[in-house]
Amino acid sequence: MNYFKDYRDHVGSKPEKFFKSTLFESGQILLGINCLEPGQEQAVNPHGGQDKFYFVLEGSGAFTVGDTEQSAGEGMTVWAPEGVDHGVRNVGDKRLVLLVGLAPAPGH
Amino acid sequence: MNYFKDYRDHVGSKPEKFFKSTLFESGQILLGINCLEPGQEQAVNPHGGQDKFYFVLEGSGAFTVGDTEQSAGEGMTVWAPEGVDHGVRNVGDKRLVLLVGLAPAPGH
Repeated sequence: MNYFKDYRDHVGSKPEKFFKSTLFESGQILLGINCLEPGQEQAVNPHGGQDKFYFVLEGSGAFTVGDTEQSAGEGMTVWAPEGVDHGVRNVGDKRLVLLVGLAPAPGH
Repeated sequence: MNYFKDYRDHVGSKPEKFFKSTLFESGQILLGINCLEPGQEQAVNPHGGQDKFYFVLEGSGAFTVGDTEQSAGEGMTVWAPEGVDHGVRNVGDKRLVLLVGLAPAPGH
């Protein structure tokens, strides 16, 4: 298999909803890219059995984790442990590109 | 707890060995930063029960995964599934900074 991927080959957009693509996946972890155009959001929601992280690659977002709301730009990691509400909205004027990991992968 | 961390606060170096720090950890995943000065390496080794990824934040490295040897620079993700030998060497002239995830976390 190909163990090497460039995230820039996995960015994109959809008009109606944020864009996501998978880089690598096993039962133990799913690693992917989420792209939010200006104004798009991931609604705040909890995950039943997964820890999640976001790493901001491009742009900046207004993140909610639990009771915390904070803006985060390039180079910031956002941690959303299992069971804690989390979401993000692109309040900037350029695409927000996020490396996202879920452990374990959904459905496992 | 603090759900937001800037990776730039977690870089560093050690003369004798590559530098590592933890950003966030649960039983399900460990997310951290590894820094390799020019010439430093992580010797090739397998992981018993963990999938691992590297995401190159700064610099470039010569990675080995299984039978594949490939150079990877900023924006590249390298995937080292459970049981597959992997390692990296900084063959460049600047610090190599990697976001690294292990799922599940070691010892869990």
